[in-house]
Amino acid sequence: MGIELQHKGSKLQGLSAVRAQYQPRIPPALEGGNVKVLKGDNTTTADASDRLAVSRAYPHTFGQPLVQLVSGAEDKPAKHSPLRIGVAFCGRQSPGGHNIITGLFDALKIQNTDSTLIGFVGGTEGIFAQKTLEINNDYLADFRNQGGYDLLGRTKDQIKSSQQVNDAKSACEALKLDALVLIGGCGSISDAAQLAESFLESGCKTKVIGVPATIDGDLKNQFVETDVGFDTTCKVYSQLISNICTDALSAEKYYYFIRLMGRQASHVSLECALQSQANMVLLGEEVANSKLTLFDVTKQICDAIQARGEQGKNHGVILLPEGLIESIPEFYALLQEINGLLRQDEDISVDNISSKLSPWAAALFDFLPIFIKKQLLLDRESDGSVQLSQIETEKLLAQLVDSEMTRRTKAGLYKGKKFNAICHFFGYQARGSLPSNFDCNYAYTLGHAAYYLAQAGVTGYLATVANLKQDVSEWRCGGAPFTAMMSVKRWLRGPGVSQIGKPALHRTKVDLKGKPYELLSHYAGTWLMDDLYRNPGPIQFAGPGADLITTTLAVEDNDYIGKVQELYAYLDKVKEIVKPGCPGEVLKAALCSMASVTEILNVMSAPAYRGNLSPF
Amino acid sequence: MGIELQHKGSKLQGLSAVRAQYQPRIPPALEGGNVKVLKGDNTTTADASDRLAVSRAYPHTFGQPLVQLVSGAEDKPAKHSPLRIGVAFCGRQSPGGHNIITGLFDALKIQNTDSTLIGFVGGTEGIFAQKTLEINNDYLADFRNQGGYDLLGRTKDQIKSSQQVNDAKSACEALKLDALVLIGGCGSISDAAQLAESFLESGCKTKVIGVPATIDGDLKNQFVETDVGFDTTCKVYSQLISNICTDALSAEKYYYFIRLMGRQASHVSLECALQSQANMVLLGEEVANSKLTLFDVTKQICDAIQARGEQGKNHGVILLPEGLIESIPEFYALLQEINGLLRQDEDISVDNISSKLSPWAAALFDFLPIFIKKQLLLDRESDGSVQLSQIETEKLLAQLVDSEMTRRTKAGLYKGKKFNAICHFFGYQARGSLPSNFDCNYAYTLGHAAYYLAQAGVTGYLATVANLKQDVSEWRCGGAPFTAMMSVKRWLRGPGVSQIGKPALHRTKVDLKGKPYELLSHYAGTWLMDDLYRNPGPIQFAGPGADLITTTLAVEDNDYIGKVQELYAYLDKVKEIVKPGCPGEVLKAALCSMASVTEILNVMSAPAYRGNLSPF
Repeated sequence: MGIELQHKGSKLQGLSAVRAQYQPRIPPALEGGNVKVLKGDNTTTADASDRLAVSRAYPHTFGQPLVQLVSGAEDKPAKHSPLRIGVAFCGRQSPGGHNIITGLFDALKIQNTDSTLIGFVGGTEGIFAQKTLEINNDYLADFRNQGGYDLLGRTKDQIKSSQQVNDAKSACEALKLDALVLIGGCGSISDAAQLAESFLESGCKTKVIGVPATIDGDLKNQFVETDVGFDTTCKVYSQLISNICTDALSAEKYYYFIRLMGRQASHVSLECALQSQANMVLLGEEVANSKLTLFDVTKQICDAIQARGEQGKNHGVILLPEGLIESIPEFYALLQEINGLLRQDEDISVDNISSKLSPWAAALFDFLPIFIKKQLLLDRESDGSVQLSQIETEKLLAQLVDSEMTRRTKAGLYKGKKFNAICHFFGYQARGSLPSNFDCNYAYTLGHAAYYLAQAGVTGYLATVANLKQDVSEWRCGGAPFTAMMSVKRWLRGPGVSQIGKPALHRTKVDLKGKPYELLSHYAGTWLMDDLYRNPGPIQFAGPGADLITTTLAVEDNDYIGKVQELYAYLDKVKEIVKPGCPGEVLKAALCSMASVTEILNVMSAPAYRGNLSPF
Repeated sequence: MGIELQHKGSKLQGLSAVRAQYQPRIPPALEGGNVKVLKGDNTTTADASDRLAVSRAYPHTFGQPLVQLVSGAEDKPAKHSPLRIGVAFCGRQSPGGHNIITGLFDALKIQNTDSTLIGFVGGTEGIFAQKTLEINNDYLADFRNQGGYDLLGRTKDQIKSSQQVNDAKSACEALKLDALVLIGGCGSISDAAQLAESFLESGCKTKVIGVPATIDGDLKNQFVETDVGFDTTCKVYSQLISNICTDALSAEKYYYFIRLMGRQASHVSLECALQSQANMVLLGEEVANSKLTLFDVTKQICDAIQARGEQGKNHGVILLPEGLIESIPEFYALLQEINGLLRQDEDISVDNISSKLSPWAAALFDFLPIFIKKQLLLDRESDGSVQLSQIETEKLLAQLVDSEMTRRTKAGLYKGKKFNAICHFFGYQARGSLPSNFDCNYAYTLGHAAYYLAQAGVTGYLATVANLKQDVSEWRCGGAPFTAMMSVKRWLRGPGVSQIGKPALHRTKVDLKGKPYELLSHYAGTWLMDDLYRNPGPIQFAGPGADLITTTLAVEDNDYIGKVQELYAYLDKVKEIVKPGCPGEVLKAALCSMASVTEILNVMSAPAYRGNLSPF
């Protein structure tokens, strides 16, 4: 019953050692290693108005077809020629990341034991410096189904400058890589797209393949249903949130303000709210959409506390995404001004900044408590943006709510118990978690898919797995061109200047018309008032609940590619019915119907209409 | 695969609902409900020098015998007459607390369906106000094997004043309670002892039984091997610490300072260090024992960071107990002075306090960062002590280490990367956790034991389960008198005044001669330098690892009562051999040996010798 503390060969102990023996599941098409790569129709951008900008920026890789991986069971499998593939972690660590590499390795070795997998040590900096490690089975043994990125590590997350692109190219050529697999989120995959384009343009033969992994869950589009690590991270946070809900209900004296990692998008917070059924969640997308000010948000929380107080409830749990602060309009403006000053390398400090800000930004800055002032001026992220994880929005809000509740009490508007807040930030304690069964399977399958894409010789593709809400046996693997997921941001900056950004894969925000949000909206009132807390408990690896998926994935209407295929089947069916020789009435009905369909779709695809549609 | 969001009868969903069906295990002696209550020899205090003080303060309950619960299998079971038992949560919530009540209820109903279990709503305040709830099976269904204390809730944790004692007595008499079961830690059980004594003295017929539950794990002595909730809490913290270790190793750029709940004793931190094998843990007991100042502690951390930096390691995880600050001598003195001022209801604030402190305390106070100053003056706990959970020692240390590392860098003593700290406090996120299998079983067994003690009509007893490191089938249940666990604190306060405290159950600190600490000391060097992190993962309820116990329990030399029995067997054996009629040589040898044994034990039991011994 005791816990072994000695190391025997493997560094792993206890449950970690048990997990190392877990065999991740892959869909039937990939089993046995006889995999056929099918190319479909050419792709475009989701928003027609972005097509031109993307095709100009990515002339060599734009418009490539979707790729499907299907079982080649009936054909005689051809022996794959030996490949040399490089792989690097490019973004922040996300649980399951290691399984992308074990999946890639296993697929590669099944096909040809002479193939080589080369790991870049220390992320993109490892690529530039050609710091490598040949990956073998023994070395992988201690990383199978384990959390973290410590197999290879990571550093900065960028391949942006032409110097960096050239260094990456030199590395790929020096190492004679057939393919380079980059693992990361929106930023890293945008960099991968740039690399794929540059390599093609300059005649470098290395293909570039991406794999989506980010705890933020914001690399999400028609082709990508979720990212490696989102499932595990949300489950760990939800476990802790639910424990705190139970605690709140037991002690009946605290309001907990819990900020959750997840950058600008609120997917993590939304999922955790659905899992834990906490009293309240403030999604950045809602706040931005309703243009709520800091005072509106404060008032909203205070009104909730007051309503609960009137029912004798003096406790509660309030979730907020780390990106909330950027979603509050006046804060966004302040952050933009501070960023501008920092970029100009101005010598700014808490004491002298006000005079350099616009009057309204200065007024907000002066109003803020000193700890937030300091946090706003901390070092930037490597991409120049504010370090959201360092800004304690939860403490700011708790403090503002405290003042307002005191005011209401004094004014006789609130008669309940004294408001007491406890603040938490949940971030780093999930990123290194042992991945859930779902993330183990998903990542491992993506690793396989990345290998088959590389082997097929395509470049500029993201490995994809669709139909994830179903059992693994029904998952569909393939690849989607990076350019098909790109968009262009348009904004106004400075007086009368309209600007358009570089094409990139942008973080997808929570869809306020989507089903997960609809579910939240439906229950928000009862969850706020009735304490219907739900404790999903710790992640289980065996027994009941071990294969649960996120609520977001379970309720979303996914499988875009499946639906495309269904549509194609209809089109084929029409062709089959309306063959030359069919009755004239049938032809006439078909013509008339199809003209109408085409007209409707044309109208719906026009840019003017797009603003009203959710992206998928 | 989706997650149900609808409620059908039960409020529970998902894993919580699965857990509600778990049948906790009890040892064979309690199975079938034919339980015999055996009384042993009379007890004394662990320290002979406390005997007089305790026996004077507790004349009615001092010295009662140990009680064992054994199987009465051969006897015909007698039907138990119907009992009325009251129960209340008295301390902070601890995972497994609900199972004490389900165990108590199930035992009570098995013996006689006419027996009644009355829950006090809202802890001790519920007792005073006679706010009750008759517990039935339907109502319990949603709380079986669930975390939190929300079945009954809790408020303040005290029964101290004579008014409170009288109110409790009135409640017990009005409700015609045969027994009152109080669930809590050292403070609550000390209160229970006071209640048992007062009830006996004043002729109140209600018996008082205690059950040990505290996440701090500091109600620990010859009879109590661990407390309900310690197992779960340490496992949840260790899961998170280990995730952060993995994160540290992946990103290689942060030092994490993690403060852990657990009050004055460092049991939680020690266990978490053993589980996670984090780089460093600062135990309050070590710091107090070595009389380390704040600067010594800072230097110790900086030296470790420097040594790691020289090996190219710029990351790490450092654990500290929330009680650390009280263990630093100059801080302890400062806290005592502040407590004194607060008790006198002085109007003190950050600005005016320095003038009211002694010069050395004022110097320390002035040196501290403003956030710590404010936290030191926050509201007290209900027992008047500092709210340790509110003092961010981790931030204080991180800041001091940062300054020192900057100084070393400027002085050319440190050449490594810039020191970056991220601070965490792990507290509330574990207290509401679904309890581990161990805590479910232990609490449920204790609930049974509490029933049989009540039924036997004893009072002033703590329910106990021994031999916990073995399988449940080998656990031994019983009861130990509160007074046998009491001690008296002696200290100097003010010039030349020696004072002795009231007898109480005091929090047991980490034993620096005990096996868990020995294990830590043995590995501390390699864990500091070699990053042998161990990820125990999330608590599992099924499959491998589901029945693991804490390392503390696994390595400690427990089963005091088992050893007492073993000793008694030896004494009986001597009697059996040395019967009248035995050879004279045998009698002579026995006499001589026993005289020597008695002499040794006399010397070892003398107060002068006790200082060198660990308590058990």
